[in-house]
Order: sequence, then structure tokens, then C-alpha cells
Amino acid sequence: MLNPDQATAFVHEAVPALARYGLRVTRLEPGRAELSMPFEGNGNHMGTMYAGALFAVAELPGGLLPMSLAPEGVVPVMKELTIRFLRPATSAVTVTAELAPERVLELAEQARTTGRAEFTLDLSVIDAAGTTVAATTGHYQLRPL
Amino acid sequence: MLNPDQATAFVHEAVPALARYGLRVTRLEPGRAELSMPFEGNGNHMGTMYAGALFAVAELPGGLLPMSLAPEGVVPVMKELTIRFLRPATSAVTVTAELAPERVLELAEQARTTGRAEFTLDLSVIDAAGTTVAATTGHYQLRPL
Repeated sequence: MLNPDQATAFVHEAVPALARYGLRVTRLEPGRAELSMPFEGNGNHMGTMYAGALFAVAELPGGLLPMSLAPEGVVPVMKELTIRFLRPATSAVTVTAELAPERVLELAEQARTTGRAEFTLDLSVIDAAGTTVAATTGHYQLRPL
Repeated sequence: MLNPDQATAFVHEAVPALARYGLRVTRLEPGRAELSMPFEGNGNHMGTMYAGALFAVAELPGGLLPMSLAPEGVVPVMKELTIRFLRPATSAVTVTAELAPERVLELAEQARTTGRAEFTLDLSVIDAAGTTVAATTGHYQLRPL
């Protein structure tokens, strides 16, 4: 299991746009990830966080959580994401995502045997005051490599 | 009306993340905008365009189109966006968005008198071969300043 700094470096290497955002993986354990997105550099002309930065921090866990468990021979693919903007964000934001390890292994087995396995992840993007500024529903697949 | 280079500069100034993506406004006329997102710098470890870059190019027109018409005393606010990832993108992508000028003026009047006006924008993100790689449905509001 990568430590948070290693996971952050991996993500920045895999997706340079996430390095430019300054996205960080702040905690990673089997089936659980915590991420943070800085406000600095990610604002807009309204003085709030750019919608795409909120999208970025909420989109990543659907790929990161399965990969953190390294199920053999499968790859996560994003199919659809809905993001609802509930409040303006004027601080760094965080996301905590969970997906039970045994569920990931079941999905991986299903993907290997049937060609795909689908899962959904509902997440909240939280500001420094604890307010939910955005909510997302992501639909992902695991597919054989 | 800003020319495309002026509109691009405005967008980059308003949202630094969009400057980092290299997003460009390639055409802007009343009620119609065309945007492009380069592939270079916006890929992922799969060799395809990062989901967030596809989001960025599809999200912007909902704000840009009303602002291009400069209706007085109102501001566009994004409420919700659903993005469906249909095909991997391995080239620059473009989006063409239209919103009739008379509709924008009606919405602006409604926002000024009732406090808000809602509109929806369905867009396609197209790759260099003309394939639709992503489709979005965005829900926006105009609100009084």
C-alpha cells in the first residue's frame, strides 16, 4: 500500500492536470481514501473555487480506491458523473471515499469472468468549515486489462 | 463582443485552471461559442484525455454564453452537471454551444424580476475524428448580481 505522499506522487505522474491543481492524497488505507484540493490557484473571478477543481477531487476516488487494492488484471473506467454544486467554496476542500475491500475483490472477479463490473460512488466535497459544497454520484466500471 | 483571443484571455484571467489546461475560445458570436481543449498536457496514464479536461471544456459554455451577451445585472451560476464518458479521447477535443440571444435576454429579465432563472445546456465533446467522446447536461441559473 502506498503511503499518502507516494500516492500523491503517483497521481501527479499519472495525471499532470492533477499535479497542476495541487490535489493531494492525505490518507490511503484499504478501501478508504482522503483527498484535499487547495484553494490557492484554483479560484475563479467570483472568488470561489472553480467547478472543475471540485469535480477533480470528487472524480479521483472511483479510480484510486480500486487501484489502491491492486486487484489483478482489471482497470477502473469512469462512465458517468453527476456533480451538484450546493454552496460556493472559499477554502480548501476535502473528500473522504470508502469502498469495502471485499466488494472491490468481488467486482474484480466479476469483471474478469463477465467482462465488466459496475459500481457507484456517492461523495461529498467538504469545505474547511465542514459544509458540504458539492455532492457527486459517480458510475464506474472495472474492466479486464 | 470579445473576439476569440480576447475571450480566451478573459477566461484564463477569470479561471487560472483553464489557462493551465490551455483551453481556448475559438469562436464567439451572440448566442454561440466554440471551444477547444488540447490533448498535450491533459492526458492520463491510459494515454487518453483526463476526465477533468473533458469536464472543463463542456462546463464553460453555460457561463460564457450568457456573459457573451452581457445581460445587465445578472450572473450565471452552475447548479449541476452530468457528464457521460462515451469513448476515450486521444486528440484535442472541441465543443460547440448555442443559446439563443433572445432566450438569454428573457432569462435575464426573469432573473431580475423573480430572483432566478434556470436553463439547461446539452453539449457534445467531439474529438479530431468527429466522434462524440463525452456528452453533458448542465443545469445553470441566472441570478441578480
